[in-house]
Amino acid sequence: VSATGIHVGAAEHEARLARLREALERRELDAACLFGTVAIFYLSGFAYQPTERPVCLVVPRDAAPAIVLPDLEREHAELLAGLVPLARTYPEYPGERPPLEALAELLRDLGLERARLGADAAGYGGMYGSRSAPLAELCPDARVHSIRDELERLRSRKSAAELAAIRESARFETLAHRYLHERIRPGVSEIEVGQEASLAATRVVLAAFGGDYALNQWGAAPVHVGFKAGPATAWPHPMGGARPLARGDVIVTWATVTIDGYHAELERTLLLGEPDAARREAFGHMCALQEAGIAAIAPGRPCAEVDRAVRAEAERRGVAAALRHHAGHSLGLELHEPPYLDLGETSLCEPGMVLSVEPGLYLPGIGGFRHSDTVLVTETGSEVLSRYPRDFDALVIDA
Amino acid sequence: VSATGIHVGAAEHEARLARLREALERRELDAACLFGTVAIFYLSGFAYQPTERPVCLVVPRDAAPAIVLPDLEREHAELLAGLVPLARTYPEYPGERPPLEALAELLRDLGLERARLGADAAGYGGMYGSRSAPLAELCPDARVHSIRDELERLRSRKSAAELAAIRESARFETLAHRYLHERIRPGVSEIEVGQEASLAATRVVLAAFGGDYALNQWGAAPVHVGFKAGPATAWPHPMGGARPLARGDVIVTWATVTIDGYHAELERTLLLGEPDAARREAFGHMCALQEAGIAAIAPGRPCAEVDRAVRAEAERRGVAAALRHHAGHSLGLELHEPPYLDLGETSLCEPGMVLSVEPGLYLPGIGGFRHSDTVLVTETGSEVLSRYPRDFDALVIDA
Repeated sequence: VSATGIHVGAAEHEARLARLREALERRELDAACLFGTVAIFYLSGFAYQPTERPVCLVVPRDAAPAIVLPDLEREHAELLAGLVPLARTYPEYPGERPPLEALAELLRDLGLERARLGADAAGYGGMYGSRSAPLAELCPDARVHSIRDELERLRSRKSAAELAAIRESARFETLAHRYLHERIRPGVSEIEVGQEASLAATRVVLAAFGGDYALNQWGAAPVHVGFKAGPATAWPHPMGGARPLARGDVIVTWATVTIDGYHAELERTLLLGEPDAARREAFGHMCALQEAGIAAIAPGRPCAEVDRAVRAEAERRGVAAALRHHAGHSLGLELHEPPYLDLGETSLCEPGMVLSVEPGLYLPGIGGFRHSDTVLVTETGSEVLSRYPRDFDALVIDA
Repeated sequence: VSATGIHVGAAEHEARLARLREALERRELDAACLFGTVAIFYLSGFAYQPTERPVCLVVPRDAAPAIVLPDLEREHAELLAGLVPLARTYPEYPGERPPLEALAELLRDLGLERARLGADAAGYGGMYGSRSAPLAELCPDARVHSIRDELERLRSRKSAAELAAIRESARFETLAHRYLHERIRPGVSEIEVGQEASLAATRVVLAAFGGDYALNQWGAAPVHVGFKAGPATAWPHPMGGARPLARGDVIVTWATVTIDGYHAELERTLLLGEPDAARREAFGHMCALQEAGIAAIAPGRPCAEVDRAVRAEAERRGVAAALRHHAGHSLGLELHEPPYLDLGETSLCEPGMVLSVEPGLYLPGIGGFRHSDTVLVTETGSEVLSRYPRDFDALVIDA
């Protein structure tokens, strides 16, 4: 697998800021205040370690963006100088004065102290016990409105650059999953095998990108591939541990490769040793449910209908009681993003959305059965971006 | 290194609940509502993957705890049945009705709909775009008060069981850091060497604990050891990447081993090849600053004084401008926890607190210099829990 290069750069961030400003205009807002680490990365490309120290990106409708940072991130702001010439730093959190007084000052300097402000949150979140006044208290003469709907809508429809990164992730995930698959055998533990396969695939990613590969998330690795196995797979989200694999185990995998901050989703159900009739049957039902979900994706169709299609197929097959979660979710920068393929979702499938389709069947005493694939909504239908065999014969491991 | 076993079990959680109830009594509150993943793990031992799906642990002052969960976590609640017999699940998020209506119902069933409630947050946080009404809206007849001060105070003074886990983490971190140290040489990249050393140390942890080792955090690994290197270390929080190491690099490491959810902190500054005079001098200043910080820790002394002691030493040495952050922070379940060793901190050092001491000097064009050690506040003074050579000769790597 060779890399095709960096896809998300300065031009992409300028285009995102332009779309945000259009949204501000529609809402008659004067500026956006972004407190979320992912929202800030999305709009500016500024990746930093979130801590107790608050950060806020201000995007005026009619002027250059500015950012409030702790002093220890000053050089990151300088790196972003083209985008963020007005960086303003404070010494430290908790500090001798509240850090976000710097935000109130910045908004005054920008003439926004009585403005209509859009925000992604009431204020900086509570990470590591951090406490700051909400924006409405910091700027009592401004009016603060949530722009979460607008930000989610921007992020949910991927650009050409985002899709290039997600396609590249999907290619490396196929490889990483193969490295995982071929290491699975009785006696090994999920922690060890996951780390071995992740390291092997990381070496390929680094060789493909050379020194250009950049981490965009603190503590992240380029590749995270692993699995949960055995009786605990009958729960959708077991925590896992050091249990050795045994013949007869059902194994639910994942492979995540991050390219420019983006990933596709790939999960498979593997069977260690020839399975019994109950497991073979459950595997077959699960595949049919996933096919029903993928077939239901089309531009203009409600996201809720995808979940309904899966549930209808499960009813027909008499396995609806084994469904324990919705059919999937949007993704890209985060593992889950709205909209959700869920009965209660109000959004429609739109071209450019990238959705996981992953109905699962969870059978106590038997195991969990879930494939997850990444599906792009196109102008005319859909395209499956993740590539890995899905059929029973390819996923039974001799043991 | 051999493991000494599991330290944090049901008796510890009962003791924590008892201390929380004492705090509720002092505040004249009827129950606590906990939305935070770490707060819930701390009080109940319930570890789960936080997602868009809200979770809330309710701890009445005079009755057994209860929990609101998505259906997919039902079995986790059953596992915790001794502690949480009143688990109440909702189908899914976003779902056909708001998930936290289940919380309002639970509080009604517990007779708490007009109670005085203590909470760790206004409501469930916004992870993955999740949106729920705040507690005050869900229960309009209740009065909601923050108990963040009380929770932080409980967590900041570690119990004997917590200290046993942290001491065990520190022992394995010494080993993991040694594995990292011996792999560092010109030409290798931080991503690859960090993963190799983490895997090697993980194998030792798994061998020591056998099948008993449990992951308490989704996506976490038992060992996370790595470093940042070269010019970017002149920033306290570079994001890192695939750059190959070069002779002359300053290297700032970290080693984190998680035992029962807890870790100690260990960071060292390594020098790849005999350093020049500027780097040798900066290394010496940094060591002296850290010694001043450690010496300033004593029960009853303000946390702010530790930061002041470091800054005074930096002034004496003429390097105060190269300080870019406070002297350290509490830790245990999270990488940073309050209180902070910061000029603006109002807490005192108290016996049982576990604090990192890690003043850093950041010199553009030269590099970053930071050791971090984990210091326990005792009844009479302090004890350094992390063990690794700190001196220049031990930390220069022949190259």
